[in-house]
Amino acid sequence: MPYVNIKITRDGVTAEQKTQLIKGATELLVNVLGKNPATLVVVIDEVETDNWGIGGETVTARRQAGK
Amino acid sequence: MPYVNIKITRDGVTAEQKTQLIKGATELLVNVLGKNPATLVVVIDEVETDNWGIGGETVTARRQAGK
Amino acid sequence: MPYVNIKITRDGVTAEQKTQLIKGATELLVNVLGKNPATLVVVIDEVETDNWGIGGETVTARRQAGK
Amino acid sequence: MPYVNIKITRDGVTAEQKTQLIKGATELLVNVLGKNPATLVVVIDEVETDNWGIGGETVTARRQAGK
Amino acid sequence: MPYVNIKITRDGVTAEQKTQLIKGATELLVNVLGKNPATLVVVIDEVETDNWGIGGETVTARRQAGK
Amino acid sequence: MPYVNIKITRDGVTAEQKTQLIKGATELLVNVLGKNPATLVVVIDEVETDNWGIGGETVTARRQAGK
Repeated sequence: MPYVNIKITRDGVTAEQKTQLIKGATELLVNVLGKNPATLVVVIDEVETDNWGIGGETVTARRQAGK
Repeated sequence: MPYVNIKITRDGVTAEQKTQLIKGATELLVNVLGKNPATLVVVIDEVETDNWGIGGETVTARRQAGK
Repeated sequence: MPYVNIKITRDGVTAEQKTQLIKGATELLVNVLGKNPATLVVVIDEVETDNWGIGGETVTARRQAGK
Repeated sequence: MPYVNIKITRDGVTAEQKTQLIKGATELLVNVLGKNPATLVVVIDEVETDNWGIGGETVTARRQAGK
Repeated sequence: MPYVNIKITRDGVTAEQKTQLIKGATELLVNVLGKNPATLVVVIDEVETDNWGIGGETVTARRQAGK
Repeated sequence: MPYVNIKITRDGVTAEQKTQLIKGATELLVNVLGKNPATLVVVIDEVETDNWGIGGETVTARRQAGK
């Protein structure tokens, strides 16, 4: 029944990696809280680096600056 | 004033269906809670089937398996 | 499979009204998009009026001003 | 840099279980995507069972019905 | 440490405007609450006008009607 | 029309500070994007420090460790 939302930058994450994220997040909730996986939802949002800020800068700008 | 977010898989939902979702969600909040529709916001997110997991699998994988 | 999030101000919404919101949002997605209700999740967030702003003011301030 | 949001019903989850969820979600993103854990945020939302619906019913109602 | 999510319609917002939004939201949290900017995350979501509803209508429809 | 969500730890933020956050976020969107403030929504979520993780630890644990 839990709902997990994973937001990451859009950086060529593969379908296999998404499968691992969904499998891993589901197992985590099952193992720690004993949740039923059948209705456990995981949604992955991929966000453009221009649209993600940290430390007051876009990720695009940080990468250009070598951070 | 309420804010409603509807997340669905990206499956060719038409503009007409989106209109119905927005109209229906707005009417629901007006009818049940007497909210003012003028400032009632509905946002629909369409998510790739690779990015949506349920039961520990992606929707893509579930459909390939005939689930 | 869809996920619906309804954010409203905390104003004494009753358990019966929450039941109606959950039932209504589920039926909306079933009717418009033919979604399977079994795994359709609805989460209602109730937000303090101090924490909800519209038009640059909190809802608390707007109500005190008779808006 | 990723942001993970875990929504669960409010059911007496302990501080130790929350620590495990946060540690596990962080490790998952580090292991699968090589993300830097230093800026990786995990937020857990606990939702009242009256406010969580699945299959068109509240979790409160489902539990009363023995589902 | 805060997390800020800004949802706007997809209307040709430039990279420079996104930079200003991220910088401004970060400064706001630093100035009002004294938060550390280093781990302060801002995510901007751009939403198609067909997917955004207000007053029970899509933004697309409102614009066509001259609202 | 934009929707802004600010998530912070629950640390005794005052009503006056919330008013400043809502006013500031609204002005930011008006100034950068020319948005109409009348339908601009800001929602502040305050999250317990046990429920907020960064760097794989809860904020509670980080503060106890003097981080």
